[in-house]
Amino acid sequence: MLAAMSSRIEVLYRVQSDAKSIAARAKAIAVEQSVEMPVEPIDDPYVLSEIVGRVDDIKDIGGGLFDVRIALASITTGFEAGQLLNMLIGNTSMQEDVALVDAQFPEEFADGFGGPRHGLAGLRARVKAKGALTCSALKPQGSTVAALAALAGRIAAGGIDYLKDDHGIADQSYSPFAERVPAIAEAVTRARGSVPTRYLPSLNGNLDDLRKQVALCRSCGLDTVLIAPMIAGLAQFHTLVKENPDIAFATHPTMAGAARIAPSFLLGKLFRLLGADATIFPNYGGRFGYTPDECKRIATFALEDWLDLKPSVPVPAGGMTLERIPEMLDFFGTDVMLLIGGSLLSTRERITEETARYVEAARAYQAA
Amino acid sequence: MLAAMSSRIEVLYRVQSDAKSIAARAKAIAVEQSVEMPVEPIDDPYVLSEIVGRVDDIKDIGGGLFDVRIALASITTGFEAGQLLNMLIGNTSMQEDVALVDAQFPEEFADGFGGPRHGLAGLRARVKAKGALTCSALKPQGSTVAALAALAGRIAAGGIDYLKDDHGIADQSYSPFAERVPAIAEAVTRARGSVPTRYLPSLNGNLDDLRKQVALCRSCGLDTVLIAPMIAGLAQFHTLVKENPDIAFATHPTMAGAARIAPSFLLGKLFRLLGADATIFPNYGGRFGYTPDECKRIATFALEDWLDLKPSVPVPAGGMTLERIPEMLDFFGTDVMLLIGGSLLSTRERITEETARYVEAARAYQAA
Repeated sequence: MLAAMSSRIEVLYRVQSDAKSIAARAKAIAVEQSVEMPVEPIDDPYVLSEIVGRVDDIKDIGGGLFDVRIALASITTGFEAGQLLNMLIGNTSMQEDVALVDAQFPEEFADGFGGPRHGLAGLRARVKAKGALTCSALKPQGSTVAALAALAGRIAAGGIDYLKDDHGIADQSYSPFAERVPAIAEAVTRARGSVPTRYLPSLNGNLDDLRKQVALCRSCGLDTVLIAPMIAGLAQFHTLVKENPDIAFATHPTMAGAARIAPSFLLGKLFRLLGADATIFPNYGGRFGYTPDECKRIATFALEDWLDLKPSVPVPAGGMTLERIPEMLDFFGTDVMLLIGGSLLSTRERITEETARYVEAARAYQAA
Repeated sequence: MLAAMSSRIEVLYRVQSDAKSIAARAKAIAVEQSVEMPVEPIDDPYVLSEIVGRVDDIKDIGGGLFDVRIALASITTGFEAGQLLNMLIGNTSMQEDVALVDAQFPEEFADGFGGPRHGLAGLRARVKAKGALTCSALKPQGSTVAALAALAGRIAAGGIDYLKDDHGIADQSYSPFAERVPAIAEAVTRARGSVPTRYLPSLNGNLDDLRKQVALCRSCGLDTVLIAPMIAGLAQFHTLVKENPDIAFATHPTMAGAARIAPSFLLGKLFRLLGADATIFPNYGGRFGYTPDECKRIATFALEDWLDLKPSVPVPAGGMTLERIPEMLDFFGTDVMLLIGGSLLSTRERITEETARYVEAARAYQAA
């Protein structure tokens, strides 16, 4: 794809500074995220006009914070996922006074990256659901393949929509991917009733491993998988999305941090741009510290009309409980996938019944 | 490789807490980074004794901070680079009260990951140097291939040891990798004098791209490259190291952040474990906020006797100047590679002479 020469990404950074330093600081960020050298010795007029980052706006938002808008040349990303991240925040991630809050991408990024191939409608269609979707997780790692398969069967029997590997379950000797995935896939298929429960194996390793794993998933009749883009590398994630248009990808936020990149941008917008059909994030009030506002913003970014991309399904998670279902659906609406793992597993021998209760609570929900 | 059943990584986290909450918080981290579910419903004695993270020590270091030592089961990493990072800090990277400070690895990690294949001695031998090594960078991105090649020749003529692509130079349309690398390699070979200057192209893209790029480098007679492991994904980095024992790898810290992982651990220790022959980091007193102590610690971790791994060369960078050479060598000693980019480029038409002055200052340095 060809970028218009002047095409720019409008990036919003939040910068801690005092008023008299902010203009210079903003310019330094624009330079760091583009030519990364003093501008004075640059002679090339093309570099000066088309490549050097441009400070478009500085707004004092109070409390020693400034919203700085910087226009970065699209062409510097090479329209490649890893380099895109590198240009947005790479070196600046090492500076403690700056966070990447948001970015507006020109339309060619939608063409180049493509966004979710299935999205909300696709994930609903897979399990014949209309409202909020349900998901749970297979844990703990260290369990045998037989134990995980048995557990998966018992949860699938309760009618769950989606059932994912814990993100810590990779390719360890106690449950190798190549043994685990066929066994769990079979257990889920055997146990499920009217809901065509989907099992999402957690992909891991290098691109060779990831490709082999996707192929194995497909050979087991699976069409939905879990990947952690910040561990795999964005380029690997995006490569798999492009190569497997029939597979839906849910993303896990591990290693996403939050100190230098707003979770709403990374998990809601960037992962969506690269093809996340569903994006898991740590909900407020659980084990993680994201605020309700930031969580709402993740969901908004995942779902809103944007560049003609399909919506990603927001998946609030991280210590959620059955009791919170009405509150979560009030907060997020029903364009959502609930993810309740550990607390469901804590119901032990009642897990099939509790899963059914979970699914029923989600299905029966009526907005207040 | 087979891990002893009981083998554990001893991980040091620094946790913000009050004294009465720290025991529970430490336990929660140990659970988050292992089974990621409540421990009570776990029946499997193997999981309970061998997989669940174990809090070994909690030390109040004052100021509301605690050093918490947690033993994580080696086997949960699958001895795979990405999953190793996932287990060390993945989900916890999203919690604002915790930072990963350090980790002690059992010896099987050295066997499994192998560390630098060339290291300090190898990088000195490549350029027939004895003391401190010198490095500079080709900038700015947006320049034509011809301009970058001409610049490379002028710096090589000054006798620089290593000359790397700017980390923002990837595979953009204005200087595609496949055109740029042969042209610059040739310019460097033609211009260099008694010092066999090495040019390090900056690798980028997915694993397919990275492999093709390494092959192209080799076909151009290059034996040293630059990679950004946090962008490429640790699995891709480690795969390239394993597949190319003749190639030396310098690592770039972009996207390394610093909020949740101590730079000394990530850049000095983990990158070394995975095979970084040289590790670039933002030095104190430049454009980045790392403290002198943390920079010294990076260098120490990179160089110290550890698990029979070769030392990585510490490469302090990020706004360094010729004037600082004596001070930097006083501080780091001569087991170091200096990296001066932008300020050297600012000397413009005098760049060959200034490079020679830079190299001479490094060579002539005598410890005070």
